[in-house]
Amino acid sequence: MNKRTVYCDYAATAPLSTAARAAMEPYFAEWFGNPNSMYALANQSRRALDQARADVAAALNVQPSEVYFTSGGTEADNWAIKGAAAMTAHKGKHIIASPLEHHAVLHTLEYLQKEQGYDITYLSVDTNGQVALADIESALRDDTVLVTCMMANNEIGTILDVGAISALCRQRGVLFFTDAVQAVGHIPVDASQFDLLSLSGHKFGGPKGVGALIVRRGLRLPPLLHGGGQENNRRSGTENVPGVVGMAAALTDAVSRMDTENARLTALRDRLLAGALQIPYTQLTGDPVKRLPGLASIVINYIEGESMVLLLDSNGICGSSGSACSSGSLDPSHVLLAIGLPHEIAHGSLRLSLGDSTTDSDVDYILEKLPQVVGRLRDMSPLKPE
Amino acid sequence: MNKRTVYCDYAATAPLSTAARAAMEPYFAEWFGNPNSMYALANQSRRALDQARADVAAALNVQPSEVYFTSGGTEADNWAIKGAAAMTAHKGKHIIASPLEHHAVLHTLEYLQKEQGYDITYLSVDTNGQVALADIESALRDDTVLVTCMMANNEIGTILDVGAISALCRQRGVLFFTDAVQAVGHIPVDASQFDLLSLSGHKFGGPKGVGALIVRRGLRLPPLLHGGGQENNRRSGTENVPGVVGMAAALTDAVSRMDTENARLTALRDRLLAGALQIPYTQLTGDPVKRLPGLASIVINYIEGESMVLLLDSNGICGSSGSACSSGSLDPSHVLLAIGLPHEIAHGSLRLSLGDSTTDSDVDYILEKLPQVVGRLRDMSPLKPE
Repeated sequence: MNKRTVYCDYAATAPLSTAARAAMEPYFAEWFGNPNSMYALANQSRRALDQARADVAAALNVQPSEVYFTSGGTEADNWAIKGAAAMTAHKGKHIIASPLEHHAVLHTLEYLQKEQGYDITYLSVDTNGQVALADIESALRDDTVLVTCMMANNEIGTILDVGAISALCRQRGVLFFTDAVQAVGHIPVDASQFDLLSLSGHKFGGPKGVGALIVRRGLRLPPLLHGGGQENNRRSGTENVPGVVGMAAALTDAVSRMDTENARLTALRDRLLAGALQIPYTQLTGDPVKRLPGLASIVINYIEGESMVLLLDSNGICGSSGSACSSGSLDPSHVLLAIGLPHEIAHGSLRLSLGDSTTDSDVDYILEKLPQVVGRLRDMSPLKPE
Repeated sequence: MNKRTVYCDYAATAPLSTAARAAMEPYFAEWFGNPNSMYALANQSRRALDQARADVAAALNVQPSEVYFTSGGTEADNWAIKGAAAMTAHKGKHIIASPLEHHAVLHTLEYLQKEQGYDITYLSVDTNGQVALADIESALRDDTVLVTCMMANNEIGTILDVGAISALCRQRGVLFFTDAVQAVGHIPVDASQFDLLSLSGHKFGGPKGVGALIVRRGLRLPPLLHGGGQENNRRSGTENVPGVVGMAAALTDAVSRMDTENARLTALRDRLLAGALQIPYTQLTGDPVKRLPGLASIVINYIEGESMVLLLDSNGICGSSGSACSSGSLDPSHVLLAIGLPHEIAHGSLRLSLGDSTTDSDVDYILEKLPQVVGRLRDMSPLKPE
């Protein structure tokens, strides 16, 4: 059995970065004070929290007072949407959403629809996963209170022009939220363009269990979690000091290396894609140009994605498939269906997301193993080409 | 300036325990996989998560399937109360609560009252902070859907007989929730007695940013956070694997040492209390017998608690006061007012909460410094005794 491990699932999670790891260490058991306490030990925690907030703000071009730490992307998504709905309930109950949103957004919208009578309009997308500004314009109604569209898609890597969508929403006086979980730390993000923006630490080398919601100054978003009044009375709960310090360090580090790292990842990704697409009956998914530097996504006809992920794993390659997620659902990815792929093709999806550890040699290795894996699966498949 | 640090604010937060620290380490950057992924690396995370759940369940005498990991006590409190309210809305909108509850409970109840029309009955408590079972019985109505009472109070250390309250609620078919944030890891807890029980990792040597809600089997509590369907579709968000592993390790460690450690802490606490109460015009707060082993709480007349905390800090002693919390409120603690202390006396409260690091020598040191601090503050006070 091959002992080499080639981790290509950075879009699922990343290892804690060295920068984050080092930044967190003192806050575990040395400067461990509760930042809400009054003594000097606690002031250390308070200062670390303030610095982390300033660092995250600087990385995203917003003010520190616009940064609210959460337990991750899911909490930030829930808070943004439920909070926006609560603060605008007097105006109406119509929300416009991209159909490619993460489940943290989609299932929150579903909750609003089922439990609070909201009407949700899902936009259509083209085969690259892009939404048309004109579609949003025609979907806007007098009772529209929120438009939500992710900045970059987690399955197919498409980067959407959320700046333009946000500008349209501002012009029309409608709140705009962007789930930037896959974008922050990976591509330049100017959060000052948006009313609400969510991010997750572990997607860019920060720790799991910490994220943030950026809330535009002046927006009176009500809390999702009530309690001791932390985070300027917006998000209660003892602050996860090591977590936010680690996230801020990972983000600062990622932003500082972004230009060179993205050039490197884009070259690796393009070579990986070019090689993988040599396999017969394969097809790129997502935008060929406007896509995340590290995200290679394809569909491979006549095979089942889960089996492919398992066989790749037996070769030490960690990847993922949107064919049927671990939730146990038998339906293929809503993203792949939304961009127009038929069920049977969507089942053969493969996502390889590259990151810090990925080398040229890794790409060589994948391009050696992937065709073998596909060949083996197709040999076994009743659906194989003639 | 004295360089000695005597940390006596374990009820606010504890340093990460050695056991927790060691248990977490491999999950930061080695076995860092997303537990929802399919490859072997991710299976390591999944197994660690399962083991942590089993360990927490064993420590609390419940089934692993009854343990739901959250981002901390505040999220667990919010989820328990809002979830219980949502699942019983057809039955009524009346909730009974102890007035000593943590703000994470009280402010959630306030939200339900203001935003959803709930009627909240706050029980009275005696001078020890105990509620009377008869008061709950007479407060129960046909439309009562939930009773909430903490297991142990964070300011005065009183341990309440929540087992009896829960038994009464079961008999009357009303849900019962106990916030056990100050109890778990500190006194024996049998969570199988309750419908809902919350806990927080950092209160017993686990990491900040992680907690749990114990949900009795069969209780169909709706999610607070919607999304990817983690935690058996009840609490979405990528699992904080290092966090839950650390919390489980800290809890297992705390439970294994509880008998001996509590005997040690009780002796230290009693000696500290006896010495501190030698200072004229002082008074114990909380139950003299049924109290947390490590929690010493008193009020000291004619002084202001905040100044006392600051002067103690200048002597290296970290303690807290319920006089006016860091939220900036000028009102004294709701807990101290509820047990019948007048405003001016509640302002002079002091809580010293002991833990693993506390030694006999620490108690000697506090008993040397505290009278000096009190004397100095009383000399400056316009309220000083004749």
